Amino acid sequence: MSWQAVGIFDSGVGGLTVLREIVRVIPQEDTIYFGDTARVPYGTKSPETVTRYAHEITSFLVRRDIKLLVVACNTASAVALPSLKRSFPIPVVGVIEPGARRAVEVSKSGRIGVIGTAGTIRSSAYTRAIKRLNPEAEVLTKACPLFVPLAEEGWVDNQVARLTAVNYLQELKDAGVDTLVLGCTHYPLLKPLIAEIMGAGVVLVDSAAETALTVAGILGQKNLLRPVAEIGNQHYYVSDIPAGFIRVGNRFLGGRLGDVYQVNLDEDGEGN
Amino acid sequence: MSWQAVGIFDSGVGGLTVLREIVRVIPQEDTIYFGDTARVPYGTKSPETVTRYAHEITSFLVRRDIKLLVVACNTASAVALPSLKRSFPIPVVGVIEPGARRAVEVSKSGRIGVIGTAGTIRSSAYTRAIKRLNPEAEVLTKACPLFVPLAEEGWVDNQVARLTAVNYLQELKDAGVDTLVLGCTHYPLLKPLIAEIMGAGVVLVDSAAETALTVAGILGQKNLLRPVAEIGNQHYYVSDIPAGFIRVGNRFLGGRLGDVYQVNLDEDGEGN
Repeated sequence: MSWQAVGIFDSGVGGLTVLREIVRVIPQEDTIYFGDTARVPYGTKSPETVTRYAHEITSFLVRRDIKLLVVACNTASAVALPSLKRSFPIPVVGVIEPGARRAVEVSKSGRIGVIGTAGTIRSSAYTRAIKRLNPEAEVLTKACPLFVPLAEEGWVDNQVARLTAVNYLQELKDAGVDTLVLGCTHYPLLKPLIAEIMGAGVVLVDSAAETALTVAGILGQKNLLRPVAEIGNQHYYVSDIPAGFIRVGNRFLGGRLGDVYQVNLDEDGEGN
Repeated sequence: MSWQAVGIFDSGVGGLTVLREIVRVIPQEDTIYFGDTARVPYGTKSPETVTRYAHEITSFLVRRDIKLLVVACNTASAVALPSLKRSFPIPVVGVIEPGARRAVEVSKSGRIGVIGTAGTIRSSAYTRAIKRLNPEAEVLTKACPLFVPLAEEGWVDNQVARLTAVNYLQELKDAGVDTLVLGCTHYPLLKPLIAEIMGAGVVLVDSAAETALTVAGILGQKNLLRPVAEIGNQHYYVSDIPAGFIRVGNRFLGGRLGDVYQVNLDEDGEGN
């Protein structure tokens, strides 16, 4: 048993979808969430830069004594996970592996589509993870860089969103995938539209629920879960001023976001 | 006369449109360009964070001994200019004032539209600058957050770009503006489409040319121009790895981009 918190970070607000699932599955745990809103997005940036940011944030969270780290950002999971695992002495869980596992479980044909940011798709991390679980699987990938700005603009069901989605998804649909991994934490906001375009025969997979189960499993195995009678607290840190995060975050969490604190990573403690 | 360079910075690659005009007007000058590609975009971030980034970059450029600073980024010009002018002992030129001056010159009706990022529009910097020059002017503004990702995706004349532009611009068109300021360095890439939607009666103003003339004027007044027989050199620094900047930058400059160096502002010299 451990009273330490579970640390979660994302490039911004999108990782709250993962936090929400973790709170649903293990509500007894304290959580510390970090959104890197001063440097968002990660999906357009190089692996080297995203890895440097991931290390800075993890250092910050480890100094706050977390017992496990969840990398809720797909791009950071895709490029920085091995390096984080080597550098920090706590379990590190990304969203790629759980999403890949779920996709392999639900796909009947083995033809699996993956959509994500340019950085996530370029890394081939989903393809490698899926092939490790099912070497016969056929993985088709497509970067959808406009989906994040569309979701942030709130354009999730207008004609612009529809045309953009058709542009990106038509070739995956034509290729006959039966499963589509939403490989970016923002994409669940576009889920109804994506579902409509892909059609009823295609299962959409988002990693949040599967990642939360993975976290619960690891904590259980290591005997680090708090007693189920407890109610955990949620703490939030961001790198830009909190106003925008609070506004969008309440939409993600149904108005239950607590206090949010700003932190400047350049000035926080040593080792940054 | 001064052999020091002219410093120019932008959140990313867009400020190269301003650099290009400076090189055209005063080709004898050396220039040092800084693109903050590891933290782009600025338009969605708070004034406090953008101001902090602007100070870090200006410190970097001042240590390289520049004689004048051009803030080519509209968002940074809108929120950080007074603070930069107070903190650094060199002339600081933004893009808002030159763009506003040009708009007031060309507008016959005094009804002027301004489009830009959320940060630029929220600051009201263009409205204030235009009203200072012509208190009778009527200024209508509209944030267009999807224009930057569209330009970066290369979607500048397809149906998605067209529908997005109509969504953003129709109310300015209906309001009868006769002048439209393209208040973001990326927007010139969408100029043909914006011109088509606004119609022949509306003059589009981009700040790059006017800013270059302002720079030449200040250097001339202060007797800091190099002899016209000289040919200046262009140097480029970026905060993320240079590959993406080089690819897009060559499109902006017609393939004439030279060497680009990466710098980590956290580690460069003192005072950051």
